[in-house]
Amino acid sequence: MATKKSARRSATRKSAARGSSSKTVKMVYSFGATKTEGKASQKVLLGGKGANLADMTTIGLPVPAGFTITTDTCAAYYDEGGRFPKGLVDQIKAGIKRLEKETGKVFGSDTDPLLVSVRSGAAVSMPGMMDTVLNLGLTEKSVRGLAELTGNERFAWDAYRRLINMYGDVVMGVDHHHFEAAFDKVKKDLGVKADTDVPAEGLRKLCDEYRKVYRKHVGKAFPEDPYQQLELAVEAVFKSWNSDRAHSYRRINEISGLNGTAVNVQVMVFGNMGEDSGTGVAFTRDPSTGRNEFYGEFLVNAQGEDVVAGIRTPQPLSEMSKWNATVAKQLEKVRKKLEKHYRDMQDIEFTIERGTLYMLQTRNGKRTGAAAVKMAMDMVKEKLIDRKTALKRIPPNDITQLLLPSFDPKQKASAKAIATGLPASPGAASGALAFTAEEAVERSRQGEKVLLVRKETSPEDVDGMHSAAGILTSTGGMTSHAAVVARGWGKCCVAGAGALSIDAAKGVVTVGGKKYGRKDVLSIDGSTGEVMVGEIARIVPDKVSGDLATVLSWADKEARMGVRTNADTPADAKRAREFGAIGIGLCRTEHMFFEGDRIKAMREMIIAESTIDREKALKKLLPYQRKDFQGIFTAMKGLPVTIRLLDPPLHEFLPHEVKAQKEMAKDLGVSFKDVERRVAMLHEMNPMLGHRGCRLAITYPEIAAMQARAITEAAIACKQKKIDARPEIMVPLIGTRRELEILREQILEVIATVKKEKKFTGKLDIPVGTMIEIPRAALTAGEVAEVAEFFSFGTNDLTQMAFGYSRDDAGVFLPEYVSREILEKDPFQSIDTTGVGRLVEIACTEGRKTRKDLKLGICGEHGGDPSSIHFCEKVGLDYVSCSPFRVPVARLAAAQASLG
Amino acid sequence: MATKKSARRSATRKSAARGSSSKTVKMVYSFGATKTEGKASQKVLLGGKGANLADMTTIGLPVPAGFTITTDTCAAYYDEGGRFPKGLVDQIKAGIKRLEKETGKVFGSDTDPLLVSVRSGAAVSMPGMMDTVLNLGLTEKSVRGLAELTGNERFAWDAYRRLINMYGDVVMGVDHHHFEAAFDKVKKDLGVKADTDVPAEGLRKLCDEYRKVYRKHVGKAFPEDPYQQLELAVEAVFKSWNSDRAHSYRRINEISGLNGTAVNVQVMVFGNMGEDSGTGVAFTRDPSTGRNEFYGEFLVNAQGEDVVAGIRTPQPLSEMSKWNATVAKQLEKVRKKLEKHYRDMQDIEFTIERGTLYMLQTRNGKRTGAAAVKMAMDMVKEKLIDRKTALKRIPPNDITQLLLPSFDPKQKASAKAIATGLPASPGAASGALAFTAEEAVERSRQGEKVLLVRKETSPEDVDGMHSAAGILTSTGGMTSHAAVVARGWGKCCVAGAGALSIDAAKGVVTVGGKKYGRKDVLSIDGSTGEVMVGEIARIVPDKVSGDLATVLSWADKEARMGVRTNADTPADAKRAREFGAIGIGLCRTEHMFFEGDRIKAMREMIIAESTIDREKALKKLLPYQRKDFQGIFTAMKGLPVTIRLLDPPLHEFLPHEVKAQKEMAKDLGVSFKDVERRVAMLHEMNPMLGHRGCRLAITYPEIAAMQARAITEAAIACKQKKIDARPEIMVPLIGTRRELEILREQILEVIATVKKEKKFTGKLDIPVGTMIEIPRAALTAGEVAEVAEFFSFGTNDLTQMAFGYSRDDAGVFLPEYVSREILEKDPFQSIDTTGVGRLVEIACTEGRKTRKDLKLGICGEHGGDPSSIHFCEKVGLDYVSCSPFRVPVARLAAAQASLG
Repeated sequence: MATKKSARRSATRKSAARGSSSKTVKMVYSFGATKTEGKASQKVLLGGKGANLADMTTIGLPVPAGFTITTDTCAAYYDEGGRFPKGLVDQIKAGIKRLEKETGKVFGSDTDPLLVSVRSGAAVSMPGMMDTVLNLGLTEKSVRGLAELTGNERFAWDAYRRLINMYGDVVMGVDHHHFEAAFDKVKKDLGVKADTDVPAEGLRKLCDEYRKVYRKHVGKAFPEDPYQQLELAVEAVFKSWNSDRAHSYRRINEISGLNGTAVNVQVMVFGNMGEDSGTGVAFTRDPSTGRNEFYGEFLVNAQGEDVVAGIRTPQPLSEMSKWNATVAKQLEKVRKKLEKHYRDMQDIEFTIERGTLYMLQTRNGKRTGAAAVKMAMDMVKEKLIDRKTALKRIPPNDITQLLLPSFDPKQKASAKAIATGLPASPGAASGALAFTAEEAVERSRQGEKVLLVRKETSPEDVDGMHSAAGILTSTGGMTSHAAVVARGWGKCCVAGAGALSIDAAKGVVTVGGKKYGRKDVLSIDGSTGEVMVGEIARIVPDKVSGDLATVLSWADKEARMGVRTNADTPADAKRAREFGAIGIGLCRTEHMFFEGDRIKAMREMIIAESTIDREKALKKLLPYQRKDFQGIFTAMKGLPVTIRLLDPPLHEFLPHEVKAQKEMAKDLGVSFKDVERRVAMLHEMNPMLGHRGCRLAITYPEIAAMQARAITEAAIACKQKKIDARPEIMVPLIGTRRELEILREQILEVIATVKKEKKFTGKLDIPVGTMIEIPRAALTAGEVAEVAEFFSFGTNDLTQMAFGYSRDDAGVFLPEYVSREILEKDPFQSIDTTGVGRLVEIACTEGRKTRKDLKLGICGEHGGDPSSIHFCEKVGLDYVSCSPFRVPVARLAAAQASLG
Repeated sequence: MATKKSARRSATRKSAARGSSSKTVKMVYSFGATKTEGKASQKVLLGGKGANLADMTTIGLPVPAGFTITTDTCAAYYDEGGRFPKGLVDQIKAGIKRLEKETGKVFGSDTDPLLVSVRSGAAVSMPGMMDTVLNLGLTEKSVRGLAELTGNERFAWDAYRRLINMYGDVVMGVDHHHFEAAFDKVKKDLGVKADTDVPAEGLRKLCDEYRKVYRKHVGKAFPEDPYQQLELAVEAVFKSWNSDRAHSYRRINEISGLNGTAVNVQVMVFGNMGEDSGTGVAFTRDPSTGRNEFYGEFLVNAQGEDVVAGIRTPQPLSEMSKWNATVAKQLEKVRKKLEKHYRDMQDIEFTIERGTLYMLQTRNGKRTGAAAVKMAMDMVKEKLIDRKTALKRIPPNDITQLLLPSFDPKQKASAKAIATGLPASPGAASGALAFTAEEAVERSRQGEKVLLVRKETSPEDVDGMHSAAGILTSTGGMTSHAAVVARGWGKCCVAGAGALSIDAAKGVVTVGGKKYGRKDVLSIDGSTGEVMVGEIARIVPDKVSGDLATVLSWADKEARMGVRTNADTPADAKRAREFGAIGIGLCRTEHMFFEGDRIKAMREMIIAESTIDREKALKKLLPYQRKDFQGIFTAMKGLPVTIRLLDPPLHEFLPHEVKAQKEMAKDLGVSFKDVERRVAMLHEMNPMLGHRGCRLAITYPEIAAMQARAITEAAIACKQKKIDARPEIMVPLIGTRRELEILREQILEVIATVKKEKKFTGKLDIPVGTMIEIPRAALTAGEVAEVAEFFSFGTNDLTQMAFGYSRDDAGVFLPEYVSREILEKDPFQSIDTTGVGRLVEIACTEGRKTRKDLKLGICGEHGGDPSSIHFCEKVGLDYVSCSPFRVPVARLAAAQASLG
């Protein structure tokens, strides 16, 4: 607990200076019609909520009056060893006096009692802080005043019992279920079921019971002095600042430099004081479409929680003028004022107490991706904001919603969900079930729409995955093979739906006791992970066009980093280019070995016993590779294409099952025993750390030589057709300078040889670089850069090795690690800036020290993740590379990163 | 090739300054009876050999005269773009003139020709440098002079043909086999087989043939001007400095700051000029026992190579006085002079030409471990050297020879070797073959001596491994399970003997077409990897005693770092303590779960579906663990014992085969299906990066809790018996600060609870720390140290993850990586200081920044490797920990590291 202690100690030290002057210091800041002392800019002193309330009041919104106790006061409380600093009690009293004056009500009065709410409010909102206490100021005496004033005895006793419950629970830590039990007993005695059926008298009795519960568990009577109530509540807020949860949240989120929390005390207003009262919530613009229309609803004679509870149906805001035209007009004015002041769409809460409008809260409203884009565009047009602000305001991840199909919400709402997996690749897909890749290919060819359902996928399945409308797996995480490949294609995928039990041989999926076969259609939502029965209609949005295209063109002007794409086929390359990619950052070549005859030649190569046989097999692969590259260079003409040499271990290209191995033996004309032996020889305990990447190229130089030849021949063929091919060769899994040196020399030799053979004299520079994905490569980047023209960070593997987590296996503990906050985020989704990031930083700094013009990029999954992109900007990468469908996201995120 | 070029460029730059003054500079340093210009200290200028020759001459040894061309001259040669600097030819001529004067012979003379040798000699010896050329100065003319002078025509022509061959090969790069072919033809023509059967006339003809070969491949005639011969030879030495091999050797070994190589030209002397001539080699002390006796042999009328060739049997040196008492006495004087001067045992070569003794070479002699210890001790007694020098002089690895059994060399020489594997754990063992662990246990129990022969071993086999006399595996490397466990015990092991084909079911090993079964005895030499047929007698040396004990006691006084041991049982702990360990640095607890009933309870725990069932099973394990720990604490009383919590993934404790799984199901009273399902669930793609170490403890806190309880209860039980138990708890596989924080809190809670339960009020501090074995832990050590009282570097895993090499799989490419010098050494044997070492350094620096008194140690295999121990000293570790049998090695290495 060293940190907690030292954090506390440091807080103590800091405020020791303050201590001496705390006697005369201003601890309470008022806001209200008669006096508003705080400013929007005083967030550190007044907390977020306090500053906001002061700000709202200042611009003339009808905010219930109140005051804020400063964050410094909280610090002083700790300095004093957990006692109120001198003068605080007086200042609080003065604050209450002002409220009494402003409202004409009296704190604790038995005729017109002033009631207040107490809320915590630090500069940054965090969990673990004290919940709200409402109706504070009610006592045995004042509750009768409230009943009289409102003419509603039930309302008064209900407010009182709520206070005792909340106060006991939140301020005194009495377990909520003790109160529940008392309530249940009262209801049972009265023979009613719903809380709302309990009459006034029952609630009065309940208040007696609640006070007994309170006394029993607190050891003291419920305070009948409203000031005592208030002081204890304020202290509870101070204490919650150092709760374990709040502490660990600050540590994990690296929130430091805060003194403590502020406390907000505010006059209660009630929307349930009769038919002239009401309550509502609204957005200043439509949060789902972004249209500039007031959007919200209200409920007459109700409290805020009634809206949430959903027992009564609220009316749309457009109906309000029928009920109270004055208030409706007032609210419309408030809307305009808010947007002009905050220059953003606001999410507001309001209450009308006896015909008077009160604004309870305003904050920037949440919105869909589409709405975010439209609002940003519109507000620029309306001159509310400039382009940079507009760019900063759109959450990059949300714009994928504009690019992917989604289910019709109405149809989806009535669909039957049978399981939930991980939202591995967004989108929406329906299809009949196919259980093998071959089946998916075959049935798709015949025009059927199928979902490929597998326990997990492997490179052998790629064809089937491509043919299928969507992919559903029962194991594997967000970075499993299925997930990564699907995201690359923008194809919908739900992974790791553990509830599914798949019997591929029988062609049956069992889930929840029900069976689904080849003829059954399921629908999967890749954005939520849901698996549903039957076909659901989809909404397919446009490509990058309209407002989004405009916004992204602004983004490109601001972004320092370029955005490339990870693409392995001409089709992907073309798509990514349409999405704005300015090159390919990662072209994996292994997928190219699986189609049709290629896999046969590949297996021939693997089974070969000698270099000569291997070369023979490789010669068969050469024309395929050349053609692939030519297609990709053509699609990307004028833009760089970074090609990664063969990476996976060879056993990935051999069939796993005996049957398939026997077929393979027959196909290749070798004995099954030979195949079996080779499979056994290639078996690895930890394939992730095995014979793959450049290690293959070192052992079998002929493989890399074939690939270098195919690349060079393809580039020359393009050039001869006046197509500006710009290949770059990337060697994977480098761990030592010498590996790259050897391979680089070999590659350059092949390039020179091919040029000579083809008598090519034009300009064709093919830079040779490496992925930095092995920790040691990052740690020795200064050396590696001597022989590398570029680095591309392979942060998937770098994360695996830096953490010692296998992506395939970490699913057992990683979710728990994230939920228990051992890790802030899944490090495969968002780069771990502390550990993995440090390796990246070391490599950038030391690589550039060796080679000033070293080109730096990232091509792991993180290349499409906004927060990782911010990190990339910080360490000075030249580009990020991500799957085609993430390119727009990355363009926007890169711009935001540049804007800081 | 950036480096090579830049290295060359920098050499050029450096000597540009020298260029201007090179005209007047002294380039040739003479040595001989009349003039010796160099000094022993001028190694950089004269090279190692040149300085040595000057030194030998100076102290009055009868060294054949000669001169050395400086290393600066070599640099100047490159400065001049590959030409001799001005004045060099003249200086060489002057040098030759002096030799003529001193010997009375004339270079190229047809009556009494002066012959010289030419040798390269840089300051550091390195491969790729030019080989020696002998007999230089012989020409068509002078060869006749030599024949006349010696009265031995055959000798003269033989010398000449050797010159042409060597010169053509070494200086001009003519492939040796061209000369061979010519020789074969001559022999065929003469109808003789051996070279020695060719008469003088035949050799004369051969010289003609050789000159034809020379002319054909060089394009010019063999130079008949001796000066031209000499100049070309000198240039060839200069050129060899920049050969690719020499270059890459310097790069890999980080040799920089050298200008070039020196060239040594020395008068030839001949031991084959008749019965008054001879040649020999000797050691100034016995290199195998270390006894202070002159040890060597000589051959009359012979050249050095005849001794090596082994055609004639040399006489022992003790016989020399019978042949020539004067020379024998002279040699004895030389011996004394050498030892007094070099203060070390010398390995010398000498030649007697016509009754005159010449010393050709002296260098520090190689010796066995036993000899090294004895000589060091004796020389301290003789006041030749001080203790520090003595310590520095013993190669730490060699002293293992004093501690382990070895085969009787005579018996071994006649044994039949059938295969060679890796020398995984030194020692020697013979036994009948046992094919399973159970069999090994059973047969050993019945008094039979068995070798356990397995494809590979796993933790299940530990009992059998322990029972066996030795372990032989057909797969796996130097750090395979078998190797690591065997080394830990000092038990002989040969691993990865790939030639063996083991059929465990049938109980047969097939190798080289022959079969060996349960009744056959094999012998394995763990120091060489040899596998031999039949039993071979062994020599079993004493434990640390005698001279070695004295030397190690000196070592302990010099060493800053302490040496702990990796031990998991009281027996190991005791043994290590006898070897001088001052604590246990790594006590693995997983081995404790395999014996007898324990594995059953362990499996019950693994198969458990709920925390309650798991706790029930763990309760059964508790008494076993407590007893184990009590035994270890007792053995190590007063010394710290660092216990690592459970590390391996749970599936390692389940049987792999269906049959065993069925038995297990029966044993535990669960269905086979349940077992099968659990095994499937626990299966991992990359177990190395999976659910193990602290990740287990996070998911199943009850396991760690049981272990913490067992440790605390054992410690208290010891304390109550007045045994000073000093446990330290080490959490494995930490990757984030938060993991350790959570576990540490849990552990401390258990300790407090147990103390309370046992009403223990005495002093019992149990520090909690972590292994640093995940790169991320090293990179964030500053944070981790906030909650760790010590770090112990687990450099096995750290190496695996930093390099991305799986120890189990890297055998496919690692040997090639080492042989091709992609890696200098196997990083699992000797720490990679650049990459892995950097992580260690970061962790040390930043860990200590957070916690000044953070205790730092290492417990990977590297803890017993001398060069890694040097690294540990450099980064400031407090201790190294290694297997019991490596403790003496580590003590010596730690002292050497301290001495710098």
